[in-house]
Amino acid sequence: MSRDRPTEDGLIARFFAPLAGPGADGMRDDAATLTPSPGCDLVLTADAIVAGVHFFPDDPPASIARKALGVNFSDLAAKGAAPRGILLTLALPDDWTESWLAAFAAGLGDGLADFGGALLGGDTVRAAGPLSIGVTALGEVPTGTMVRRMTARVGDVLCVSGTIGDAALGLALRRSPPADWGAPLGEEARAALIDRYWHPRPRLGLGPLLRHYARASMDISDGLAGDLAKMLAGEGRCAEIRVADVPLSSAAAAAVALRPDLMETVLTGGDDYEILCAVPPDVLDACREEARAVGLPLRAIGTVTSGEGAPVFVAANGLRTTFGAGSFSHF
Amino acid sequence: MSRDRPTEDGLIARFFAPLAGPGADGMRDDAATLTPSPGCDLVLTADAIVAGVHFFPDDPPASIARKALGVNFSDLAAKGAAPRGILLTLALPDDWTESWLAAFAAGLGDGLADFGGALLGGDTVRAAGPLSIGVTALGEVPTGTMVRRMTARVGDVLCVSGTIGDAALGLALRRSPPADWGAPLGEEARAALIDRYWHPRPRLGLGPLLRHYARASMDISDGLAGDLAKMLAGEGRCAEIRVADVPLSSAAAAAVALRPDLMETVLTGGDDYEILCAVPPDVLDACREEARAVGLPLRAIGTVTSGEGAPVFVAANGLRTTFGAGSFSHF
Repeated sequence: MSRDRPTEDGLIARFFAPLAGPGADGMRDDAATLTPSPGCDLVLTADAIVAGVHFFPDDPPASIARKALGVNFSDLAAKGAAPRGILLTLALPDDWTESWLAAFAAGLGDGLADFGGALLGGDTVRAAGPLSIGVTALGEVPTGTMVRRMTARVGDVLCVSGTIGDAALGLALRRSPPADWGAPLGEEARAALIDRYWHPRPRLGLGPLLRHYARASMDISDGLAGDLAKMLAGEGRCAEIRVADVPLSSAAAAAVALRPDLMETVLTGGDDYEILCAVPPDVLDACREEARAVGLPLRAIGTVTSGEGAPVFVAANGLRTTFGAGSFSHF
Repeated sequence: MSRDRPTEDGLIARFFAPLAGPGADGMRDDAATLTPSPGCDLVLTADAIVAGVHFFPDDPPASIARKALGVNFSDLAAKGAAPRGILLTLALPDDWTESWLAAFAAGLGDGLADFGGALLGGDTVRAAGPLSIGVTALGEVPTGTMVRRMTARVGDVLCVSGTIGDAALGLALRRSPPADWGAPLGEEARAALIDRYWHPRPRLGLGPLLRHYARASMDISDGLAGDLAKMLAGEGRCAEIRVADVPLSSAAAAAVALRPDLMETVLTGGDDYEILCAVPPDVLDACREEARAVGLPLRAIGTVTSGEGAPVFVAANGLRTTFGAGSFSHF
């Protein structure tokens, strides 16, 4: 690093020590301690986001921080876990600035305050490449209650939280040049979709009811179609989804009304960070009632069927579509 | 990714699922569970290594894996913790190959088998930059016994494990062109020093006695001089180190005999991954006796003194040197 730049320890003290959790000793040590609450398992997940792949280098730094946090806490939410903390690895390109880092740390602090959890450790390295942000998130669940991804059974009802496709449409609007359907869509709808691309909303409030009712759960990060296929891979399971029941925001519905082919983007695009869960039919009503009660309604969109192959999306006119190879992949 | 490349899930199943720990469900979920042993705290640390900064892109992939693991487990060792597992984030450049990844995973598996712990999760992302490897390591200690970095007191004896400076000399030999003192040093010594650069040896066997005897402890990753300064920063503490007592390997001693100015590299260079600890004088003999008994002798190299400023290195002839700004920094 150049001489006029502060040391790594100086950066940590200034920007990250204020976010440190009780076991992290103000980030003045090489490790932190954490003890799960009595009767709890820790739940661990790690996801990295990279400039030019998962976000735009000129996205607002606070939004980038919130995304790094949100994509990880979304995994915790899907597993039924409550956040305890994170470890953060920042690979900074040569042109980083202190003002960027200050805004990033502020966004991270706001996200931790909103979602729960504290900063427990991390590392800052210089990399002659794009900015890359790795987060390891730690949450907890009552012992033995983590909700698994692969445990859905034939006959289970498939439900999703929130609305699907917004972030993928937001990404299309964020690109240069932006998608041509943005202009007729209008300013407010454009902003709503881009906001969903920037700011994942980990559905942590669903944790308790997922632990209670869901047979299987995952978050939708790589597109509904692709993630459904991942959830049901092997063991003779497939899915049938009623396209008309997939919940759309008013902005996404307006975009699809303008350009019906965008429905494929909605169903296969990434970055939803909504919950996809499989609920046994006999507890479906109770599960959805509790979801409404916490303000995070779950929509039933289809069922787990027996069979092999990609999930089948059935349109209102009866047309059946699969998106085997079309699934969005960050990789 | 290009069409002829396997999917991320395929890569994980092939190379990383065999390393998965019991709570990781064969890496088929988005999160893993972990429960500390009864009566234990978890100890958490995260360190990333980047090609061109912390290792050479053409270093053997198994050695790179071992380094990513070793630098993190070295932190656990210094804190008195026993490894439980890791989460791994791989940012792969565009030119990665399956054979590279296979060798990397094999090295990682060997390291986990040698040191303890299992793979608990991770993420693989594509990055248009250098290969970067982030590891979050989890260990455990009996509740409340993690050994802190900043808690040394004036009068404590400063001890180090192993030998100091080998990796920094190994790095000089690994560069292109290699250091000119390599030729007279001879093949065997060169190989020994480069081996120390490639393969950190986390001193996990010292954990129990560090918890029992050490008032403070850290691992030496950024050079003895700089890390001593970090350990003693603030609170009116300084250190006086007897240079003649700093333990050197026969290879490092031979290099210093050829070129006495290399002693500065030894004292300030990075990548030692030895333990630096502060031991109260009244338990020093017992501590060192136990260290010998586990085959990892500790050498007393100086004491914590009262004062301010950089640690003082006292040569056999009485000459006193400090390395305030000369300390090695990866950042």
